[in-house]
Amino acid sequence: MSGHPDRDGPLDGDTHQREMVPSKRSAVLVDGVILNGPTTDARAGEKFVEDACRLIMEEVVLKATDVSEKVCEWRPPEQLKQLLDLEMRDTGEPHHRLLELCQDVIRYSVKTNHPRFFNQLYAGLDYYSLVARFMTEALNPSVYTYEVSPVFLLVEEAVLKKMIEFIGWKEGDGIFNPGGSVSNMYAMNLARYKYCPDIKEKGLSGLPRLILFTSAECHYSMKKAASFLGIGTENVCFVETDGRGKMIPAELEKQIWQASKEGAAPFLVCATSGTTVLGAFDPLDEIADICEKHGLWLHVDASWGGSALMSRKHRKLLHGIHRADSVAWNPHKMLMAGIQCCALLVKDKSDLLKKCYSAKASYLFQQDKFYDVSYDTGDKSIQCSRRPDAFKFWMTWKALGTLGLEERVNRALALSRYLVEEIKKREGFKLLLEPEYANICFWYIPPSLREMEEGPEFWAKLNLVAPAIKERMMKKGSLMLGYQPHRGKVNFFRQVVISPQVSREDMDFLLDEIDLLGRDM
Amino acid sequence: MSGHPDRDGPLDGDTHQREMVPSKRSAVLVDGVILNGPTTDARAGEKFVEDACRLIMEEVVLKATDVSEKVCEWRPPEQLKQLLDLEMRDTGEPHHRLLELCQDVIRYSVKTNHPRFFNQLYAGLDYYSLVARFMTEALNPSVYTYEVSPVFLLVEEAVLKKMIEFIGWKEGDGIFNPGGSVSNMYAMNLARYKYCPDIKEKGLSGLPRLILFTSAECHYSMKKAASFLGIGTENVCFVETDGRGKMIPAELEKQIWQASKEGAAPFLVCATSGTTVLGAFDPLDEIADICEKHGLWLHVDASWGGSALMSRKHRKLLHGIHRADSVAWNPHKMLMAGIQCCALLVKDKSDLLKKCYSAKASYLFQQDKFYDVSYDTGDKSIQCSRRPDAFKFWMTWKALGTLGLEERVNRALALSRYLVEEIKKREGFKLLLEPEYANICFWYIPPSLREMEEGPEFWAKLNLVAPAIKERMMKKGSLMLGYQPHRGKVNFFRQVVISPQVSREDMDFLLDEIDLLGRDM
Repeated sequence: MSGHPDRDGPLDGDTHQREMVPSKRSAVLVDGVILNGPTTDARAGEKFVEDACRLIMEEVVLKATDVSEKVCEWRPPEQLKQLLDLEMRDTGEPHHRLLELCQDVIRYSVKTNHPRFFNQLYAGLDYYSLVARFMTEALNPSVYTYEVSPVFLLVEEAVLKKMIEFIGWKEGDGIFNPGGSVSNMYAMNLARYKYCPDIKEKGLSGLPRLILFTSAECHYSMKKAASFLGIGTENVCFVETDGRGKMIPAELEKQIWQASKEGAAPFLVCATSGTTVLGAFDPLDEIADICEKHGLWLHVDASWGGSALMSRKHRKLLHGIHRADSVAWNPHKMLMAGIQCCALLVKDKSDLLKKCYSAKASYLFQQDKFYDVSYDTGDKSIQCSRRPDAFKFWMTWKALGTLGLEERVNRALALSRYLVEEIKKREGFKLLLEPEYANICFWYIPPSLREMEEGPEFWAKLNLVAPAIKERMMKKGSLMLGYQPHRGKVNFFRQVVISPQVSREDMDFLLDEIDLLGRDM
Repeated sequence: MSGHPDRDGPLDGDTHQREMVPSKRSAVLVDGVILNGPTTDARAGEKFVEDACRLIMEEVVLKATDVSEKVCEWRPPEQLKQLLDLEMRDTGEPHHRLLELCQDVIRYSVKTNHPRFFNQLYAGLDYYSLVARFMTEALNPSVYTYEVSPVFLLVEEAVLKKMIEFIGWKEGDGIFNPGGSVSNMYAMNLARYKYCPDIKEKGLSGLPRLILFTSAECHYSMKKAASFLGIGTENVCFVETDGRGKMIPAELEKQIWQASKEGAAPFLVCATSGTTVLGAFDPLDEIADICEKHGLWLHVDASWGGSALMSRKHRKLLHGIHRADSVAWNPHKMLMAGIQCCALLVKDKSDLLKKCYSAKASYLFQQDKFYDVSYDTGDKSIQCSRRPDAFKFWMTWKALGTLGLEERVNRALALSRYLVEEIKKREGFKLLLEPEYANICFWYIPPSLREMEEGPEFWAKLNLVAPAIKERMMKKGSLMLGYQPHRGKVNFFRQVVISPQVSREDMDFLLDEIDLLGRDM
């Protein structure tokens, strides 16, 4: 067994951050270790934190809004490994060397805060959530019991309550999870528990085949969840969508009948509000009707689209969401709370989350505590230690107010609308479909293909364009946006608008730049 | 449906952080939104971040090592709600008000960095991981693809490789998860996949009852995992432990035979290295023999005890761990990487993690990218967005070196040893059992009970002592440690030593303080 590999001699005495050896006179020695006094050189540590904070401020925060900075400083994996000193050794590095390392990490990291980072469903820098996040890291809490996380548990309660109001429920319950995928899993498990509480103890063995329904455009986490929960990916029934990517209710009902006829046990319908690629919203009201009729749990994956609830103008996209049994909603996306901030909201108020998830650990959830232990909400979670993700959203909400959040959503969708109209106007750009949200899917057709007939050869050639432009933009570092093939459509770009640091000028730049990078193809 | 509840009039113009309304002459207006220029007042935002960083530095970082500060400023839930202004309103708050809120959040939060916070399996302030955490928050990455997280993916790879060396495997694979509970779930699912890969698609319905074995002292996440994965809590077979909390191998084998005889399908043994309450280490070598003989996956939950691997003196506690198929190990505990930092390590090198977890989302994991897509490791995870938790551990490791980490472990265990000897010497203190790790479990017996016979009345009265002392210590704010009843033993204290800021003097203080708080009982 390799104990300490690469042992390279005794600890070098002059590294600055070496933990101090106490040398008090009344030294107490146990197992060769002097136990008097703390060993950390606090002053040196504090100085290091101060220096690093200055670096972070200068290199990340102050540059976040500067479009003249590169979005990324691309290096291929093998080269980046050589540039970075990744190796962990027997002896530590001095502070000045660590600061250089920090600088390298920043330099070669993708600037997801940059106004021209459009690659994912998150982007931009929110100063308020950032402060909350710094506080969280400094305070290092874990939210399971009130005794260790009094403030963060109350904040989580307040935020959940407010989100529940925006869904349109009178009351409800909820929990923040490490990702929308995890929230979807929670919902699937809750629906299963509601369908048959015995599964918690007995498991699925010997039961009829449970089956769930979701749209063909849903997030891939539904499959991951079905597999993880022992339901099986084949028991995820994908319901066909219309030309805009919305679930067709009649198809859903047909599939439910079919599954029941085959002896399977339908227990859940998952609708999507804001699909990942197309940004489509399933018709919740009609789906809710079907769920009611068949007695099925309705979960809405609004991880991406939920933020539209903040806008009086756009919340109609989620019309009917108040009829859902559970909702996943990630404020770390359009509301910029920072990765991760993901709520699962549940309409039930019979303490279903706790009943479904509790394991009643006696070392954490003692019932003879001196305060109201209903505030010890950790047993609603599959996690033990859990981060206070609600806090960063709360801070932004406090800073901007509901109206400020609404303005963000309205602006992102107005910018999307602007981009769509520009795409329509410009030669060589072709919309995949008229978007209803902030996902703008389009092809760039380089000059050499513009006269070609839209046959197999055209599509085969077009399929190569987006990856090639993506490579060029990454190497140049001028912007980042994603591309993908999708359900028979060859590779196209998906532009997502989120950040309030983004302007019309950035939309124009995006189209100009793609044209610049691809016009010789 | 309540849209914007508590609407309180139009946005007040003089809040400092209101996002700016651009007023360029060539204004482009879409849907009533002016799209020119960014709307964020970056200068004001940056100033706010700077001010908040100063506050965090002064109120959290600089005070972290000061034992004259209180560990907590206790307020009961209803009172704390009144003290904090939790309500989110339509309009935002000005910066000076937000800074006051930050101050309140810090004031009423438990100081888990404090040298006298002994309440959980994490504690203390590590300056290096803290810097890494600040960087993470500022850069806001998500580790799924190399294109958006080049540095953090390479760091994760390097850290996993090093941890694998310390386990004693020649090679392996792994992933960082949001908690040891989640790592345990991953392992259970991997073992199940290995046992029968079809379950991923087909689910458990109709299969024989899968059954797993773990010690009666294991973490409660095993039950949560079995329930979540559709296996059922009744199919977690709890193997009896000896007087020190270690699994009895003969009992394990007996249970495996028994389960097979009953037609259940054994697939997994979970051993624990460092149990939550007693800090016990299961005999891995003997358990591995049994697993080999029966063809069962061996998972070791070393979430807490794994850090002992860093110490040449103490790694023998995990003797045999190299024979495990998977290991959960949380550097956020004794190695102080900050919540959360939790690795699942897997011995298999046939890409089992990817096979078991992949869903091959085409919008993230395109196969026609211009770089080596084997670096896109996101499909090994049940999460989609995922935090770069390896990075903070890497930074501490770079700063202290392996020898510095070893010193931390050695010191924590030497301090534990010192405390044990003090408990033995002092009147009114009684060890529950001789510890082998950093969990020191003991009763404080107040003067009124010292002459009483150890009968039912004695235990009933003693059971009330720890909760009562805990209440007093929280209200005083002088220290925090946990208590619990455990397997027939009435409420006792569990002292956990982790932080290098802790000294012999803190151990003495702990016992003096408990005696001070409880001597009139």
